[in-house]
Amino acid sequence: MNDESLAKRVVDRMYNHDPFSQWLGIERVEESAGSCVLRMTVRKEMLNGFGIAHGGITYSIADSALAFASNGHGRRAVSVETSISHTESLREGDVITATAEEVSLSNKIGIYHVTVRNASDAVVALFKGTVYRTGKDWFPED
Amino acid sequence: MNDESLAKRVVDRMYNHDPFSQWLGIERVEESAGSCVLRMTVRKEMLNGFGIAHGGITYSIADSALAFASNGHGRRAVSVETSISHTESLREGDVITATAEEVSLSNKIGIYHVTVRNASDAVVALFKGTVYRTGKDWFPED
Amino acid sequence: MNDESLAKRVVDRMYNHDPFSQWLGIERVEESAGSCVLRMTVRKEMLNGFGIAHGGITYSIADSALAFASNGHGRRAVSVETSISHTESLREGDVITATAEEVSLSNKIGIYHVTVRNASDAVVALFKGTVYRTGKDWFPED
Amino acid sequence: MNDESLAKRVVDRMYNHDPFSQWLGIERVEESAGSCVLRMTVRKEMLNGFGIAHGGITYSIADSALAFASNGHGRRAVSVETSISHTESLREGDVITATAEEVSLSNKIGIYHVTVRNASDAVVALFKGTVYRTGKDWFPED
Repeated sequence: MNDESLAKRVVDRMYNHDPFSQWLGIERVEESAGSCVLRMTVRKEMLNGFGIAHGGITYSIADSALAFASNGHGRRAVSVETSISHTESLREGDVITATAEEVSLSNKIGIYHVTVRNASDAVVALFKGTVYRTGKDWFPED
Repeated sequence: MNDESLAKRVVDRMYNHDPFSQWLGIERVEESAGSCVLRMTVRKEMLNGFGIAHGGITYSIADSALAFASNGHGRRAVSVETSISHTESLREGDVITATAEEVSLSNKIGIYHVTVRNASDAVVALFKGTVYRTGKDWFPED
Repeated sequence: MNDESLAKRVVDRMYNHDPFSQWLGIERVEESAGSCVLRMTVRKEMLNGFGIAHGGITYSIADSALAFASNGHGRRAVSVETSISHTESLREGDVITATAEEVSLSNKIGIYHVTVRNASDAVVALFKGTVYRTGKDWFPED
Repeated sequence: MNDESLAKRVVDRMYNHDPFSQWLGIERVEESAGSCVLRMTVRKEMLNGFGIAHGGITYSIADSALAFASNGHGRRAVSVETSISHTESLREGDVITATAEEVSLSNKIGIYHVTVRNASDAVVALFKGTVYRTGKDWFPED
């Protein structure tokens, strides 16, 4: 099995039956070992008291992108530290895309940048995530 | 008006009509200028594919605590950088409490630690947030 | 051997023959498994073009405090992510103290806060460090 | 005066008479408004007890790159939060290059990624810095 189909199998297992991703309305655009693109639309119930998206919304899609990208190698990876800067406001109806890319990978640690952009391709959030790579495979039977 | 009642007025204005806080079920426990305590219960639709709370849930309550604590001084403050480490898993029904405390405050910048704990008082997430304090008051008419 | 003497043996091994710590003039005040206090004096060659200590100086003492505190359990630990906020300026002759405390510890990951204070006990920098704990002991022969 | 020559004038003023940069042996490779490249060689007195460069060394060159890049617009900018991940070890004699690029810029806040690479172009550290942009110009007389 090639890298791409392994990544897809992992994300299938992580994404299906995931109630919060369903609630967010996350759509899988692209995925492979170490990278991933997700998309969603900001809805009314995701807004804060100022009528703009709560910081937790962009964090959530970025954190999902981190999980999918880092687990896509086929080994279980868990987040150890994440940071995010919110650089632009989002309103109801805005479509956002989160692109995760691997910036460093060793046997035990992986580091990822996730960039969240709006439909005009402007950066709305910059996320960095560090994961610990366990010794457990997603499909040990392979 | 004393500090505590100013903080309450600010948080009233931020929290009311905030659809995402309603969805999360956030409950205000305590607030004053520079600090704040919030509580919520993890529900089924907040879980990821492993049956544990999505990282975005603890981030969201911590980010709200940051916003309420930092704006409680009466001047509008906006988040410039946040980081979070998830140290324990959460399951459906778990009650979590987010406590924000101010660790540094200057004219333009405030820094806050938010600790999220479960009902057994174990730390489940460590959050740090930095805000930029604008020159605009919440109640300029005062 | 108790925890404290194990921590001392580890830090002895890390600190002795460490040329950069010698250059910084770091002095060990206190150490035990998971915590540590270090002290140093800001010298002229540590200043930047504004006559205040370069950000790398407070980072360096905090990073050393992280290494000593996290390795003090007797297992080799390596830094995976660190962050620092510089909250007050330092001048030539200022004596600073870095206090590292463990805020989370699991089998593989440790998280530490290091607070750097000046002689008046004012916070000059807030540092957070995450380490990966390897499976290797410092003194396997024990 | 164009952007590039303004950036050079600012960095001239910051870099000259900067004792710690002299001690580090930092060499300016390139600079313009919002970006900058610096280079240095790891020396014996920069090593820790394991014979590899102390984390404070790569932090220091990255922090200088942040300062030069963010001030290069001609307005004084001060660091509010920085983070760094050390991904590869460095030994005596290694030549490292720090490249700062602006990833977000608003009226008050700038965000920069600084990548530190060794002579083989391998990433040895990933740094992110956030600055607050004051209202003061470097050369108000212009």
